[in-house]
Amino acid sequence: MCIGLDVDLQKIPEFLLREEDPIFAFNKAIIDATHHLAVAYKPNLAFYEAHGLKGWKALEKTINYLNENFPEIFTIADAKRGDIGNTSGMYAKAFFEDLNFDSVTVAPYMGKDSIEPFLAYQNKHTILLALTSNAGAYDFQTQIVEREELYKKVIKTSRNWTNGQNLMYVVGATKAEYLREIRKIIPENFLLVPGVGAQGGSLKEVCEYGMSRNAGLLINASRAVIYASNAEDYAEAAAAEARKLQQEMAAYL
Amino acid sequence: MCIGLDVDLQKIPEFLLREEDPIFAFNKAIIDATHHLAVAYKPNLAFYEAHGLKGWKALEKTINYLNENFPEIFTIADAKRGDIGNTSGMYAKAFFEDLNFDSVTVAPYMGKDSIEPFLAYQNKHTILLALTSNAGAYDFQTQIVEREELYKKVIKTSRNWTNGQNLMYVVGATKAEYLREIRKIIPENFLLVPGVGAQGGSLKEVCEYGMSRNAGLLINASRAVIYASNAEDYAEAAAAEARKLQQEMAAYL
Repeated sequence: MCIGLDVDLQKIPEFLLREEDPIFAFNKAIIDATHHLAVAYKPNLAFYEAHGLKGWKALEKTINYLNENFPEIFTIADAKRGDIGNTSGMYAKAFFEDLNFDSVTVAPYMGKDSIEPFLAYQNKHTILLALTSNAGAYDFQTQIVEREELYKKVIKTSRNWTNGQNLMYVVGATKAEYLREIRKIIPENFLLVPGVGAQGGSLKEVCEYGMSRNAGLLINASRAVIYASNAEDYAEAAAAEARKLQQEMAAYL
Repeated sequence: MCIGLDVDLQKIPEFLLREEDPIFAFNKAIIDATHHLAVAYKPNLAFYEAHGLKGWKALEKTINYLNENFPEIFTIADAKRGDIGNTSGMYAKAFFEDLNFDSVTVAPYMGKDSIEPFLAYQNKHTILLALTSNAGAYDFQTQIVEREELYKKVIKTSRNWTNGQNLMYVVGATKAEYLREIRKIIPENFLLVPGVGAQGGSLKEVCEYGMSRNAGLLINASRAVIYASNAEDYAEAAAAEARKLQQEMAAYL
């Protein structure tokens, strides 16, 4: 289980807004209450950038807190970046060196030279969008290119890039029925699966169709866990929700 | 002409590194020397994020300096963002409200609900990647989907999104021969055209194939202008290079 740290000041307990850094205070409490249940945390950059400098500072404090106190936990910068080669190199530096995340999500539209600068960090992980959890995924990702869907073309093509066999892929839980097809192409690669919970994806179907010999699934829950309560008990409520999900996952393993 | 503020500390004059904020010092000097020649500036976010908090602070100072001193100048956050709806809304807030850019570049892979939160800001501009300037553009963007290239499908589909007729599009100068085809689909929409200069695109071909009745082209130069010299005269050298480009453009108008 991965927990998404998508902190929205409208949704966290109101009393936290009196803290000097409400976002970090919230993240720290959620991490302290759930770290024994999660193997990964995934802050989505948008929720931090929306607050400018303060948001970036909260992000830095969050990743530093994770790296210092829970070095065994896998960290994901959910950034969905991608640009021409020299620019993607700068993004890779930002997330892998400056912030020291273990992994970053990237978008495939700009192709090979937009992703290889991330793949060049061999002690880090690059997670490529394949089939996303939202409705807009049907606009282009499932369109047919050379007799197969674009997302399959993305997966197959990306495997040929330098270090491409090390890629992880994003596949939305709301598209669980596609996981069988995807596992035919990449039986062993790790998949990051968002969309369980608030977005309505089925954990059962994700496990049934997506599990590999070594599990191979990092299933993310964000809103369902972190906003389980917005009262004083928010951290305990998040832990209770996380335990419920973790036990469900354990049952499928 | 748009000038790309892609500031790389390895490439700016060494004496600037002694400044408290070398990135902003560089940008300010470039802007002061070129603002009468350019209609737009485009900082690419990667170059700022690579320096963490300091980078974000330099970005804030740069956009504030532009908004306060040159309110008529068009500003572009070259961010290539895109995420599920509620998350894209946070990015829109970051660039349109917190930083107060006039426009932002976005990536199409996640479809309609990843772009509409940007389009909801009707006093701002959303610039969608169509056909990018890099080699990786041929991996997916030019692949055939339903008898036409993916980038054409992206342009045609996006026009049907809410406020989609207001979109601007990114088309790389290195793909100038495609501009004729693109102008058949969108004769009047503004295009942001990177890739003249360091990337090798031809200004002549871009103007020949891409100009609309109202010009309709925002041609970006980054490295060729801002790194024209890395000595004491860097700002004057940038201005000289910008004037050369601007005069070439004026000749085609």
